[in-house]
Amino acid sequence: MSSHSKTPADGAPLTTSMVSDLLQTPIQDLTLYRRALTHRSMLRSRNREANESNERLEFLGDALLDLIVGELLYHRFADRNEGFLTRLRAKLVSGKVLAEYARRIDLGDYLLMSKNAAKGEGRDNQSILADAFEAIVGALYLEQGYEAARTFVRDEVLDGIDLLEVAEQEENYKSLLLERMQADGRPQPTYRVIQEEGPSHDKTFTVEALVDDTAYGQGQAGSKKQAEQQAAREALKTINNSS
Amino acid sequence: MSSHSKTPADGAPLTTSMVSDLLQTPIQDLTLYRRALTHRSMLRSRNREANESNERLEFLGDALLDLIVGELLYHRFADRNEGFLTRLRAKLVSGKVLAEYARRIDLGDYLLMSKNAAKGEGRDNQSILADAFEAIVGALYLEQGYEAARTFVRDEVLDGIDLLEVAEQEENYKSLLLERMQADGRPQPTYRVIQEEGPSHDKTFTVEALVDDTAYGQGQAGSKKQAEQQAAREALKTINNSS
Repeated sequence: MSSHSKTPADGAPLTTSMVSDLLQTPIQDLTLYRRALTHRSMLRSRNREANESNERLEFLGDALLDLIVGELLYHRFADRNEGFLTRLRAKLVSGKVLAEYARRIDLGDYLLMSKNAAKGEGRDNQSILADAFEAIVGALYLEQGYEAARTFVRDEVLDGIDLLEVAEQEENYKSLLLERMQADGRPQPTYRVIQEEGPSHDKTFTVEALVDDTAYGQGQAGSKKQAEQQAAREALKTINNSS
Repeated sequence: MSSHSKTPADGAPLTTSMVSDLLQTPIQDLTLYRRALTHRSMLRSRNREANESNERLEFLGDALLDLIVGELLYHRFADRNEGFLTRLRAKLVSGKVLAEYARRIDLGDYLLMSKNAAKGEGRDNQSILADAFEAIVGALYLEQGYEAARTFVRDEVLDGIDLLEVAEQEENYKSLLLERMQADGRPQPTYRVIQEEGPSHDKTFTVEALVDDTAYGQGQAGSKKQAEQQAAREALKTINNSS
């Protein structure tokens, strides 16, 4: 978001004010942040500025994100069980999503990496961005403490995310029903469209979820896929109530 | 360690002073700790005291232990890479080890569980103890904050552990070499004693690690097993240097 001028991507050296700007937090000591932004390709480059890459800080940042995001979900979804919390968290701290956070703050421009590694899409590479993002959280924690890391993750990262929407996406009832059947040693569920109503641009599908030829739930929606999800959800309820 | 009198195991109700004693930390509000000590069997018991078991707090505590133990290892093993840190941490926060911490503070006596679940070895069950231990760390964090949880884990738990010894155990070079060969699509390494010296009570074994009939490393030690580990370590070095 920051409208920065020169960055390491342009060959400018990394500075304290640059990182303060990046994190929207004044930092004192550049050392750890420099390391957090150092891709391992720098360790082999000829004019070697770094003796350690960001991989150990990434190890710390990964644990911090699990805790900070985990706590937020713990409070936000007070009536959901730990299985739900674990699955939703995995989604919010996946490499793909972390790389998106990183892109939002233009983290790629600040990476210290060899010219070779930066070629092509290097500064936009998903795993490089996700790793550097985790490492930055680790550096913030070590330099400024737990509260600072938590505030950064909450305000700069999670604030822009509609957790409820992610949670809805998360609820893949078809997968849950399949898992449940596998755990119970029963056959795979199947789905059958039993009704299709309305004009082609505005159809309503009614779908049944069957296990062993018995219908356990029914769903209705504007797409087959959504109707199947609803049928699976209803089937799960039926099965839970009868067990 | 505490020489307590009556506990929930004897049918006594859980109290604030009991938990303060258990954690060696004065606590104010019993609510979260009661939940942390509540096994899910209580939710089904007839005189139902609890509406929530410790499973959600366990989710939080698990992330806390990863972070707190991870940070300690990050500083203690400043020259080791994140792979080493990850493996060593996994060992220190395994269910087996967490249950040992729990046993050291007699956590089992404080568990709130149904009579049926407590029968036999219920209060000494590894996974029940490990889960409750994680949940207690989660409760401490929510009631007293991050520093309190960190202090508890560091002083009451990790203090008694020889991290270097665990790290040594961790370094299973034979496994590492085998993994490496599998990753490279090469045959399994084999080991051959090439020399055996000294009297039977004080032997020295010299062992070679071979891959594809080529010796990549040699080790010498007072037992075949240790000599093999050393040979595997040397072989890993040779292979890393030549790749």
